[in-house]
Amino acid sequence: MNITSAQSDRIIAAAKAKAIEIAIPMSIAIVDEGANLKAFYRMDDAMLGSTDIAIKKAKTSRLFNINSGEIGKQSQPGGDLYSIEHSNDGLITFVGGILLKNHQGETVGAIGVSGGSLKQDEEVAAAGAAAL
Amino acid sequence: MNITSAQSDRIIAAAKAKAIEIAIPMSIAIVDEGANLKAFYRMDDAMLGSTDIAIKKAKTSRLFNINSGEIGKQSQPGGDLYSIEHSNDGLITFVGGILLKNHQGETVGAIGVSGGSLKQDEEVAAAGAAAL
Amino acid sequence: MNITSAQSDRIIAAAKAKAIEIAIPMSIAIVDEGANLKAFYRMDDAMLGSTDIAIKKAKTSRLFNINSGEIGKQSQPGGDLYSIEHSNDGLITFVGGILLKNHQGETVGAIGVSGGSLKQDEEVAAAGAAAL
Amino acid sequence: MNITSAQSDRIIAAAKAKAIEIAIPMSIAIVDEGANLKAFYRMDDAMLGSTDIAIKKAKTSRLFNINSGEIGKQSQPGGDLYSIEHSNDGLITFVGGILLKNHQGETVGAIGVSGGSLKQDEEVAAAGAAAL
Repeated sequence: MNITSAQSDRIIAAAKAKAIEIAIPMSIAIVDEGANLKAFYRMDDAMLGSTDIAIKKAKTSRLFNINSGEIGKQSQPGGDLYSIEHSNDGLITFVGGILLKNHQGETVGAIGVSGGSLKQDEEVAAAGAAAL
Repeated sequence: MNITSAQSDRIIAAAKAKAIEIAIPMSIAIVDEGANLKAFYRMDDAMLGSTDIAIKKAKTSRLFNINSGEIGKQSQPGGDLYSIEHSNDGLITFVGGILLKNHQGETVGAIGVSGGSLKQDEEVAAAGAAAL
Repeated sequence: MNITSAQSDRIIAAAKAKAIEIAIPMSIAIVDEGANLKAFYRMDDAMLGSTDIAIKKAKTSRLFNINSGEIGKQSQPGGDLYSIEHSNDGLITFVGGILLKNHQGETVGAIGVSGGSLKQDEEVAAAGAAAL
Repeated sequence: MNITSAQSDRIIAAAKAKAIEIAIPMSIAIVDEGANLKAFYRMDDAMLGSTDIAIKKAKTSRLFNINSGEIGKQSQPGGDLYSIEHSNDGLITFVGGILLKNHQGETVGAIGVSGGSLKQDEEVAAAGAAAL
């Protein structure tokens, strides 16, 4: 199953509401089942650099069917996946990318969030994912 | 002046409404004053390839402060700007990218639309730009 | 619907059989529904440069839901899509890329073939597509 | 000597059989003597991100005439080859890329496998290499 615009709209709205609640301007990206960009939203005052990071977090999550931060645990020096970030035109392997699954448990895409601390990025991404 | 999310929301909503009216699924991209991606929306069933084209049309427009199709008139074989598409990580120089100006006439960004015929892309981009 | 390995195997076998029949070594690429590489086969003595062309033909076809050569008709100097090849990390817009549809008419991916004349590439791609 | 399609077919068949045996969907890539892609196979349900990693493991192995994981031992912080992954359009330097040598001991190409744990990737790559 692939993500729909109706789903993507709900996810971005929920993520944005959480970002406003914690008062951190964020970039929010959604990729579809094929890891292709479906939607993107950069809030006013979010850092320019957060655009590409949000997109790459979402892609990383979908490419490996796991939250982006899980890859980062294994890509540290000495880790099994050290330097995996050089693949797939660049990965972002810290937290903030979360796999999106529908009620049937099927993966439909992924969300990536950037702009705050890792904890804040994760919180906003989780709020988005919960809205699916 | 830079485009705001409130403006970008209005522009995308208006472009999407026009796309729905003419029944063509479209990709719609907004870049800001710095030619950086501000928002992106791929409607269900829009061609996958329209994502990058919409973004590149918006960038092309803002990078040269002109509608994307105007560049294309000069980039033909023998033209003054022949092969300018090789610059800036790739331009798209046919119509569908329109500069966004506020009521004071200041450029705040650009919109790019892809997914239909050139006429349809232009129509949807113009509907978006008019909502600013 | 996404292409399966069983389908991809049949398609490549049929394309290869046709290439052998006409005695032209070919590169054959299959992309899936999301335009991601599913399978690739370079026959002995196929030109090295045919690898990337076969892959890009398949991607081009899936990105725009049309056979690759149809794009090329519109991307000539003066055409509506002039220089579209600069999008999506490079397109190949001459013939040899064919959309793959299942018996229900759903697009499941695309095939791209390179190594011979355009007529030969098209013939081999068509033989592959017919095996789906 | 360069790898032939007959050899490549045997190698991919053996690697695929091992992947099926251990029930892990894998991406399997073969590069030739010139480090150019010869064949690629992504099994159903293999992670999308495994495509590029399998190809880069094979290339890394052939580019340096050594198994990919051997490079990784020297590319860690403080190591002799620290950050070598930035070369050659991106390397993958953990295990799963194995040099392919014929019975005369001549290098004919390399295989790269991705999709499972490092141990599983290595096991599948080794099964493929043994079939040469």
